[in-house]
Amino acid sequence: MTTLTNRLLGEGVGTALLLAVVIGSGVMAERLAGGNSAVALLANTLATVFGLFVLIEVFGPVSGAHFNPAVSLVMALRGELPWVLLALYVLVQLAGAACGAWLAHAMFDLPILQWSTKVRAGQGQWIAEAVATAGLLLVILRAPAAKVSAMVAAYIGAAYWFTASTSFANPAAAFGRMFSDSFAGIAPGSVPGFVAAQIAGALLGLALHGLLGRPVRAPAPDR
Amino acid sequence: MTTLTNRLLGEGVGTALLLAVVIGSGVMAERLAGGNSAVALLANTLATVFGLFVLIEVFGPVSGAHFNPAVSLVMALRGELPWVLLALYVLVQLAGAACGAWLAHAMFDLPILQWSTKVRAGQGQWIAEAVATAGLLLVILRAPAAKVSAMVAAYIGAAYWFTASTSFANPAAAFGRMFSDSFAGIAPGSVPGFVAAQIAGALLGLALHGLLGRPVRAPAPDR
Amino acid sequence: MTTLTNRLLGEGVGTALLLAVVIGSGVMAERLAGGNSAVALLANTLATVFGLFVLIEVFGPVSGAHFNPAVSLVMALRGELPWVLLALYVLVQLAGAACGAWLAHAMFDLPILQWSTKVRAGQGQWIAEAVATAGLLLVILRAPAAKVSAMVAAYIGAAYWFTASTSFANPAAAFGRMFSDSFAGIAPGSVPGFVAAQIAGALLGLALHGLLGRPVRAPAPDR
Amino acid sequence: MTTLTNRLLGEGVGTALLLAVVIGSGVMAERLAGGNSAVALLANTLATVFGLFVLIEVFGPVSGAHFNPAVSLVMALRGELPWVLLALYVLVQLAGAACGAWLAHAMFDLPILQWSTKVRAGQGQWIAEAVATAGLLLVILRAPAAKVSAMVAAYIGAAYWFTASTSFANPAAAFGRMFSDSFAGIAPGSVPGFVAAQIAGALLGLALHGLLGRPVRAPAPDR
Repeated sequence: MTTLTNRLLGEGVGTALLLAVVIGSGVMAERLAGGNSAVALLANTLATVFGLFVLIEVFGPVSGAHFNPAVSLVMALRGELPWVLLALYVLVQLAGAACGAWLAHAMFDLPILQWSTKVRAGQGQWIAEAVATAGLLLVILRAPAAKVSAMVAAYIGAAYWFTASTSFANPAAAFGRMFSDSFAGIAPGSVPGFVAAQIAGALLGLALHGLLGRPVRAPAPDR
Repeated sequence: MTTLTNRLLGEGVGTALLLAVVIGSGVMAERLAGGNSAVALLANTLATVFGLFVLIEVFGPVSGAHFNPAVSLVMALRGELPWVLLALYVLVQLAGAACGAWLAHAMFDLPILQWSTKVRAGQGQWIAEAVATAGLLLVILRAPAAKVSAMVAAYIGAAYWFTASTSFANPAAAFGRMFSDSFAGIAPGSVPGFVAAQIAGALLGLALHGLLGRPVRAPAPDR
Repeated sequence: MTTLTNRLLGEGVGTALLLAVVIGSGVMAERLAGGNSAVALLANTLATVFGLFVLIEVFGPVSGAHFNPAVSLVMALRGELPWVLLALYVLVQLAGAACGAWLAHAMFDLPILQWSTKVRAGQGQWIAEAVATAGLLLVILRAPAAKVSAMVAAYIGAAYWFTASTSFANPAAAFGRMFSDSFAGIAPGSVPGFVAAQIAGALLGLALHGLLGRPVRAPAPDR
Repeated sequence: MTTLTNRLLGEGVGTALLLAVVIGSGVMAERLAGGNSAVALLANTLATVFGLFVLIEVFGPVSGAHFNPAVSLVMALRGELPWVLLALYVLVQLAGAACGAWLAHAMFDLPILQWSTKVRAGQGQWIAEAVATAGLLLVILRAPAAKVSAMVAAYIGAAYWFTASTSFANPAAAFGRMFSDSFAGIAPGSVPGFVAAQIAGALLGLALHGLLGRPVRAPAPDR
């Protein structure tokens, strides 16, 4: 049995570790890359893909492994998460995200408390976040249960590169990365625009899911 | 149930997203790589591999996830796609491909409408496209249903590097990449040669599939 | 049947090969990378991820594929490994680790016997090792049997980047890497701090596993 | 049904494509990498891993997908391949390997016929080839059938980096790469030493497989 405490703990610890992976690998990558941003983003991408796959596998059976208020919101809209749980999930996601940033700083001997100064704004960035989040929701809503961890991880790996914003696609990630003046950071003033675009994108993904109809999965006889 | 509208929407949106992944990640990679083309192509490769795996999983149960007129043509030749559907598929693939290029430009704050100036021609390039497309068809025709997404994605990941043309292997991709004067672009004048080589390659792949006989899949008792 | 000799041989050879992979790929990466440490660590990461996946698959059915005294200790604490076997496992793990370092040196025409001079110490490093090992144990304790190889490999791939210490997370690895004055080495004086942090982290991972409750795995009807 | 012709065709075409992948991606990587050998080997590694996974999946059900005389020899020694078939397999593997090199040259507009000038010799190289081939055989002999493609691909991905020779581990690969004066080439004079080390390694892998006992695979109830 998974109790409510288990679920909230899972969602909080999982989100914290996700942010620690994203921010920590960004710090490591920037330190080692000697100014080559493509190599740094490659490393950041691989660490995130590997980490996300593992975190979804580990915490999925505990809390569903949303780690993301936009995902939890869509689940509530679909009746798969009670509204009161939505509020609790978002709370532990945000708290976990901040703790994850601080844990990364502690490991890298950086000042624990800091604010990002990296402005991320403009029409292209907002379109990118909407596209990134729409795609994420589409993947989550249509993935077969056994493949959701690999598909979400792979999706984010692609989206780090094909969206102009490197695909935050997650209000909790935007919140947590605000606390880190590093490679993965985002200035607090840029967060509201990102969150609005993400929520719009999540709803777009939900709508697109409806338009595509029910997937037909053959019993998959291995030819 | 999947209706015809679902199928055409799936094929169009899927092809658009595939082109957005290929072109968008190419733009991002070129911007960040500081002139190191190998690093740029590595990033472009990983984004494409991750994206293709996810797109085939998401859209496969909707439309078959061809995203590629050469694949649809072979399916029609094999009697697995009615000829009238072939025409519709190719139309939405081409329209989707152009839209995907434009979506990538919108995300990266580039002029939406542009033409590639990158000439890709010559005997080596055409042999490469024929080999790339023959291999792609062989993979699609022989992959077990449960592994087709991973195998196609991995195949394209290899073909980005082992073919001299970075493996377009897809007339819709050639069409869409014509609209982008970026890393992944191809000058309009080079498209007909690529498409001819791709169709020749697809037929070669189909022939090779026949020559190899029916695969023998043991019930795979896990030793 | 797997005899005790099989098991100890498996655990020893597996740990030796793990260290040969980590140290050998570090030497190769440093030689080729021309001073770009991010590229070197990327190569080291990929080799380790690929190698670890294969080693766990190959040696798991023989010995459990711990390759790691901290893992064996937790298994003993959980009653899944007799205490006398724990002692034997740790012995062959340490012996294997040293042999693996020496094998790497033999392949790369380096002096077989050497000591690392790379000091790895400080609060951030120790927090990093504790976090890395806690996460490793959490992954091992909660992974479904069929996915443990992929999950452990992916986890270490992420942890190479998101922890400040590049995630040794293994007292036998720390021991063996002490014998190599190369990219992956660690000065003997830094080993006790790492091992203490790793054991603390392993116990933390075990505790966290308890706090998260029993995972609920639905029969996973593939939607 | 798979006829003898199917099998020999599969083994020949598969080996040709394997060499085209290894040599072609080496040429592309060296052209783009601007002198950074680590980046070039990373690209070469990824292309080989992706390609090998796909080739084993595609040709496994046709010919067994050995692509490697050392593997076929061990299969013959184990009674899993008739000795007369061994001779035919080795013939088509060698012929395929040469054709693969030439196909790569045709795609990259290089002179078709050429000889490598890259000397690869010395004790470290030979130990590396023996270790690489022993490991490859151990993986092949112990992999569950459903995972052999992923495991062999991942193993070679690791071995490109952890062995000093970048792991040819295959007499047909050494033979074919002799015909290419490029990144992946090997001077003809260095081939006999490599082949001898590979055969010794293959026998070592077979012996080690025996020493480890029969693997115990639980029915793997997904906890």
